[in-house]
Amino acid sequence: MFDYKLLAALAAVIEQGGFERAAQVLGLSQSAISQRIKLLEARVGQPVLVRATPPSPTEVGRQLLNHVQQVRLLERDLQRQVPALDEEGMPERLRIALNADSLATWWAGAVGAFCAQQQVLLDLVVEDQEVGLKRMRAGEVAACLCGSERPVAGARSLPLGSMRYRALASPAFMARYFPQGFAVERLARAPAIVFGPDDFLQHRYLASLGVQEGFLHHLCPSSEGFLRMTEAGLGWGLVPERQVAEQLARGELVEICADTPIDVPLYWHHWRNGGQLLAQLTDHLRHSARQWLVPL
Amino acid sequence: MFDYKLLAALAAVIEQGGFERAAQVLGLSQSAISQRIKLLEARVGQPVLVRATPPSPTEVGRQLLNHVQQVRLLERDLQRQVPALDEEGMPERLRIALNADSLATWWAGAVGAFCAQQQVLLDLVVEDQEVGLKRMRAGEVAACLCGSERPVAGARSLPLGSMRYRALASPAFMARYFPQGFAVERLARAPAIVFGPDDFLQHRYLASLGVQEGFLHHLCPSSEGFLRMTEAGLGWGLVPERQVAEQLARGELVEICADTPIDVPLYWHHWRNGGQLLAQLTDHLRHSARQWLVPL
Repeated sequence: MFDYKLLAALAAVIEQGGFERAAQVLGLSQSAISQRIKLLEARVGQPVLVRATPPSPTEVGRQLLNHVQQVRLLERDLQRQVPALDEEGMPERLRIALNADSLATWWAGAVGAFCAQQQVLLDLVVEDQEVGLKRMRAGEVAACLCGSERPVAGARSLPLGSMRYRALASPAFMARYFPQGFAVERLARAPAIVFGPDDFLQHRYLASLGVQEGFLHHLCPSSEGFLRMTEAGLGWGLVPERQVAEQLARGELVEICADTPIDVPLYWHHWRNGGQLLAQLTDHLRHSARQWLVPL
Repeated sequence: MFDYKLLAALAAVIEQGGFERAAQVLGLSQSAISQRIKLLEARVGQPVLVRATPPSPTEVGRQLLNHVQQVRLLERDLQRQVPALDEEGMPERLRIALNADSLATWWAGAVGAFCAQQQVLLDLVVEDQEVGLKRMRAGEVAACLCGSERPVAGARSLPLGSMRYRALASPAFMARYFPQGFAVERLARAPAIVFGPDDFLQHRYLASLGVQEGFLHHLCPSSEGFLRMTEAGLGWGLVPERQVAEQLARGELVEICADTPIDVPLYWHHWRNGGQLLAQLTDHLRHSARQWLVPL
């Protein structure tokens, strides 16, 4: 068998983002952590970490982490069958990567009851889809919720449904930029709000209306900030419909061009041998997500 | 004078996070961008970029970017005085680093009218305080809103006020973990929600109540997700008071221990020679932030 003390040290350094915090979490000195990492590197015959701030795993380090993640999930199953094994009596942690808009809207509602009942603690990581899957491949997360369908090796992907977005703006913004009512040709000069350089939803929306040119935009990498900026009249932007039911009902936000939603599909990526807890969460999500998402 | 074509290429590579996007933004080929960076490195006699994904500036690269940022702001002033210079007629962009909770709550309301009136587009970057100031020092942002008071060289820091946080949970959570009412000694076993490994607000709150031990917690790096998880009963957490006025009024969230707020001061860091637009925004914030923050 592997020496799991060494692997646990590696996992802690990556998950905690440094040697000092890893030492705290494991209740060891920083030099003990260093020693374990060095010993692990001596055994595998090559570096497992890139010593940067924060440290990152090498290719072989990634493979080891991937293994640790899966072993941990299997251990949990065993602890349930043989409760005496569970020496610490601590709730299990699940590390999950997901997109910002899911976390800002439906995620907590869909998993809240499950986590409370199962006493699971969540380590959530907000990532765009490609990065989320990269973390999955690297074994840094147990599951990933994103817009990519294709699973990584060893994992499955489950379609959960789509988030429906609407292009919204404040009435003041509409009066300023579209005084004669909405007109496609004025859209590129009316500032949009874009989540970040990888967010092409506004581009897709414009393309669907036949606008191909560049457009003015703010960058705002926060779901809640995005909505606040839309409400404050700084720009128009595509916002999850469920996030703004009240603002739409009160007329504080309006759809810039009537009834032109965009649906974004979401897939749940989970390890095939991820253990019982992950399988149960997957089952739970398969049903609970339906309340919050539109069918694919 | 410096060759600003070369400096603009460097700035675009850093701001866009890569050579390909930098080329798109500047309307050049990727090899033209590479050439300009190489030429710049030949002139300064050392590398200006670390070729990683995304690329990062070297120490000398940082100094060049810092200079570019300040020149851009001065150019804007000149363009106002000599409008013919403004060949593109494009709105100005301001790149600003700020903390997630400000962006999720009061920021858009405080700057919305100013940005609409001045036709400013915002490039917002969400960063914890130390990283935000590092970006400021690196010349990657024109201003930074964070909890650190001490300004970087060449900049000023203006105290704006404090955000007031309250430790909140759902009534169901309270019933589950504190069936006999709140008790400090049960707090460490009632899961908290923590924004990320650099968020010590919950630690400070526990310390203020005399709890020094470790505590169970979820990690949720999203202001809105943090609130959703609190509402869903997954944990207790410190939430900006202004974000939850309605939930408190409706009794959907309650303070776990009556009237124990924590105030977090906020400082606005801006370049001393940052040009007129930045000076105006600073003046505007000095007044508008008062509505949203409690006095320091």
